[in-house]
Amino acid sequence: MSHNRLTRLRAALGERGLPALLVSSPANRRYISGFSGSNGALLITADAALLFTDGRYVIQAGRESPDFELREIVNPDHPMADLLTEAATELGLRQVAFEAAHVSVAQHYEFARALFDTPVELEPAEGVVEALREVKDAEELATLRKAIAITDEAITAVIPQLRPEMTERQAAWMLEVAMRERGADGLSFPIIVAAGPNSALPHARPGNEPLGVGRPIIIDMGALVDGYHADLTRTVCLGEPDAQFHEIYNIVREAQGRVLAGLRPGLRCNAADALAREHIAAAGYGDKFGHGLGHGVGLDIHEGPSLRRAAPGKEQSGPRLHAGNVMSVEPGIYLEGWGGVRIEDLALITEDACEVLSKANK
Amino acid sequence: MSHNRLTRLRAALGERGLPALLVSSPANRRYISGFSGSNGALLITADAALLFTDGRYVIQAGRESPDFELREIVNPDHPMADLLTEAATELGLRQVAFEAAHVSVAQHYEFARALFDTPVELEPAEGVVEALREVKDAEELATLRKAIAITDEAITAVIPQLRPEMTERQAAWMLEVAMRERGADGLSFPIIVAAGPNSALPHARPGNEPLGVGRPIIIDMGALVDGYHADLTRTVCLGEPDAQFHEIYNIVREAQGRVLAGLRPGLRCNAADALAREHIAAAGYGDKFGHGLGHGVGLDIHEGPSLRRAAPGKEQSGPRLHAGNVMSVEPGIYLEGWGGVRIEDLALITEDACEVLSKANK
Repeated sequence: MSHNRLTRLRAALGERGLPALLVSSPANRRYISGFSGSNGALLITADAALLFTDGRYVIQAGRESPDFELREIVNPDHPMADLLTEAATELGLRQVAFEAAHVSVAQHYEFARALFDTPVELEPAEGVVEALREVKDAEELATLRKAIAITDEAITAVIPQLRPEMTERQAAWMLEVAMRERGADGLSFPIIVAAGPNSALPHARPGNEPLGVGRPIIIDMGALVDGYHADLTRTVCLGEPDAQFHEIYNIVREAQGRVLAGLRPGLRCNAADALAREHIAAAGYGDKFGHGLGHGVGLDIHEGPSLRRAAPGKEQSGPRLHAGNVMSVEPGIYLEGWGGVRIEDLALITEDACEVLSKANK
Repeated sequence: MSHNRLTRLRAALGERGLPALLVSSPANRRYISGFSGSNGALLITADAALLFTDGRYVIQAGRESPDFELREIVNPDHPMADLLTEAATELGLRQVAFEAAHVSVAQHYEFARALFDTPVELEPAEGVVEALREVKDAEELATLRKAIAITDEAITAVIPQLRPEMTERQAAWMLEVAMRERGADGLSFPIIVAAGPNSALPHARPGNEPLGVGRPIIIDMGALVDGYHADLTRTVCLGEPDAQFHEIYNIVREAQGRVLAGLRPGLRCNAADALAREHIAAAGYGDKFGHGLGHGVGLDIHEGPSLRRAAPGKEQSGPRLHAGNVMSVEPGIYLEGWGGVRIEDLALITEDACEVLSKANK
């Protein structure tokens, strides 16, 4: 597994003409090495694969990343910098690329200072490992399916137990317990349970508001399993929904249906977004769908590719979907004062269409 | 509250000769503004206090940070950069300091590019808000006491329910449920339950190992309340402990007792560490205490000041404790193959000594 990922990374470095990459983002280093500790970095060249971490994680790193040569961080004032300098010198490197989006200005300064007396140049790079992660391999898909199944089963078990007098916070806790008891390691993100007008805030936090009767309740949740994130949204209503709910729910559901029927390799990400956005706009709610249609999921809850509007004039360019992408598809309509409806499933892009991975009832 | 913090920050900026600071670390921006959303930054000058965030958080930011002037991020490709340029120009700034430890190289490049045609210079700064956060105010202490009490009550309730056949993972989940049911918003960090030889790894993760009989079980946990972190470690044993356990436990307990009796304002942080380390070394286990004695806690689980060894020759320099610091005191001894003992309490540095905030039985 990680051996194949390392091979793909080396090919990507070759294409970009980079002799070495320091991988310090937690998700990227886990993807490449399997190491799941909270502190560390990888130094990857055509021949070498080193893992730097501190004493707390030495035993764990040995177990999780047997193919990597382990080097222990000993100076807590210079995490990494001394090891990087030593390794780069030993390997005869003249250039080391680093992940510019994941290295702070302060850390970069420390690296540069440590490398000052060497011929090694630091080169900013972006998205090298992230690009590999957009297409999931079989092992990743198996883990994602597990996380998604736990999420589906948990919401299916909890929805019949919800009562109007329960608070958002109580409902969120029931959902969390249901996922954890089914084997989730944790949450993909803090669960959203937003009732009535609160559901008009796409990122509301559960509070002491009761769920109530006859109004929208947005539930957005996901199980975390072995580092992989599920993501699911359902909008439900206890008791009899009002006419508004029926109308909005159907528009959002149809919008999502258009996308799920249209996803396939080669489709532009902005065209996928447009499939939902045009339907919602035609129904008169174009300005009430204020976020993107969806995002990739995997070792991060939000990763590439991103399904969103094209910048004006850029409709004919921008990235396309590939087989192996796992995407959230989550259109929504939000009406201040009344509430909102969002429906979200995860879909795997297959060879010629998509497979909807989320199975919870809509 | 936040008004007073803003005043202290402005004084700190004045002392450092900084006309403006961009505050982008999540804990720092929450400390200064009260804003708890996941995306945003503050721009603070002698007269202005701006809060930049995106559309998801506009309503929340208005509620949480009424004293701040809200500016919405509209271009998702340039989070912050456009707003920063606009505001700096409007305020007539020639220099904006930024948090070098919390701004990535890529983000810095984006800021620099956006500011290229303006007279505004970017200036790296470190630890400005972090230094203010080391001394807790009354509101922070009240929240920390709440988080600590929940942690104490949860472990006190769960320990009598532990059974030898339960796994580490099951015990961790019981502890989590006990904290959440008592009002914790979440966990300060993933709970550690490490039984037998696993307890020799200071950062072990709970697995399928049974707790077992007659061997050390390290439990390290904390409740998160309104952004504040509790941190508590107990080492327990089900059934009859072996002679080794008695010996090691007593050494660690005495080491901790020496520290708690000695903490006071003005004491050097490395001298606090030495109080425990010398005792453990005198007992013959100096090389088995492989981490620092403790750390500040607050909006981050690890924050300043840090109680650790002085670098050789630096025993007579380094930072000192101040009244209002809240410190973890957590000596430990780890013996590979057998296990470990760690005991951790939180202590508030008072005007002339310390108050042990953790009340769970040792």
